[in-house]
Amino acid sequence: MSRYKITIEYDGTPFHGWQRQDGFDTIQQRLEGAIFPIAQARVTMYGSGRTDAGVHALGQVAHFDLAEDFDCFRLQECMNAHLADVPIAVLSIEKTSGDFDSRFSALERTYLYKILNRRSKPAIDINRAWHIVQNLDENKMHSAAQHLVGNHDFSSFRAAGCQSKSPVKTLNSISIRRCADLIFIEVAARSFLYRQVRNIVGSLCLVGGNRWTEQNLIEAFLSKDRTLAGQTAPPYGLYFVGVKY
Amino acid sequence: MSRYKITIEYDGTPFHGWQRQDGFDTIQQRLEGAIFPIAQARVTMYGSGRTDAGVHALGQVAHFDLAEDFDCFRLQECMNAHLADVPIAVLSIEKTSGDFDSRFSALERTYLYKILNRRSKPAIDINRAWHIVQNLDENKMHSAAQHLVGNHDFSSFRAAGCQSKSPVKTLNSISIRRCADLIFIEVAARSFLYRQVRNIVGSLCLVGGNRWTEQNLIEAFLSKDRTLAGQTAPPYGLYFVGVKY
Repeated sequence: MSRYKITIEYDGTPFHGWQRQDGFDTIQQRLEGAIFPIAQARVTMYGSGRTDAGVHALGQVAHFDLAEDFDCFRLQECMNAHLADVPIAVLSIEKTSGDFDSRFSALERTYLYKILNRRSKPAIDINRAWHIVQNLDENKMHSAAQHLVGNHDFSSFRAAGCQSKSPVKTLNSISIRRCADLIFIEVAARSFLYRQVRNIVGSLCLVGGNRWTEQNLIEAFLSKDRTLAGQTAPPYGLYFVGVKY
Repeated sequence: MSRYKITIEYDGTPFHGWQRQDGFDTIQQRLEGAIFPIAQARVTMYGSGRTDAGVHALGQVAHFDLAEDFDCFRLQECMNAHLADVPIAVLSIEKTSGDFDSRFSALERTYLYKILNRRSKPAIDINRAWHIVQNLDENKMHSAAQHLVGNHDFSSFRAAGCQSKSPVKTLNSISIRRCADLIFIEVAARSFLYRQVRNIVGSLCLVGGNRWTEQNLIEAFLSKDRTLAGQTAPPYGLYFVGVKY
């Protein structure tokens, strides 16, 4: 039995998220389907994190086991050939030790959230960024966001249905920068609560749009009450960038 | 009679290029169709440059005339509402003088060509970049490209069907840089020959892939013979960035 680590890029638009669900087109199921004709075996792809419907990935990581030994490069090429018609690309496959776990061995996960901040609707960035018409001050957003860095109770940014035992997480870093009409929010932590990034982005946009002061954000954060924080940012602006092990 | 300057972004994928053609879906026709219900007049959109099918624009510019005076912001909002279902966005509309011509008043046009340089097929960048598997040396490409800067006969990079009177053009600048798997080629000139950018990119990729030396590129350039230069890069990697007036 050999364990493999696989790194994947996908456009989340046409999929019902990462996780296999009967009757829905998901990324996990597409990957498992693409490996079947080569391995002639039903394998389970264990992802480092489940992404919601519409969320993209630049470097999602998963692991899977095969009884037989396969050449990693051949596996990758064959899987990409089987995935030719869907926006999923296998970036790399490598053999790894039997105790590697894409989810539990992770040291740091990075997400990027992309906002198109201008009057006009998106054309190039349809399904690729959150369109916000009101002018956002990215410097205010960056400054306020620094209060979230560190080990804290993130209940205010935790969605219903979160399966994490504790609402306490350590946010390693968060940065907000603008490039012309685009605002990029990059966030890193060992692990995140369910929809934590999208919920943080929603609240930061209240600060950026001058509807909240930095103090309002701190108060909502300390309240540990989800209903006092901002809206959940839509999925299509979110990119799972990668995982450090 | 008032003249208006309009700036437009579009994803070229679903269109048969800029120029109106009977029986085909084109950007010019969509824009003219979007202004009709507001202006109640048939207007012609004169583009600063025709883009081929599949070519994108971040800042295409056109001009048009209306007998009546319209509020520019209202025009923009109404046009974007009419364009809701297509990947065309009106970024701005402003009144301009009657002697402004989007094509002939242009001082400099900028294009960007995007290459995805990696083994795996694109997922996020489908229809947005040229996928080249062979590793390209962007420094060699940049160095060789500098020989094209200045006033030269660009016959080697001129496509059949070019309506320019002369093959002599002045290339203001060309730069090639890499960001991870992406290579960006940015080119600026007052005007270009038909498919000049895509033809230059095709030849530069021969240099980047070590199939041509810098000297080979210079020889192909000096030959003024299109058949001695490289292939035409595909349209979907090309972005019309903007025009200076």
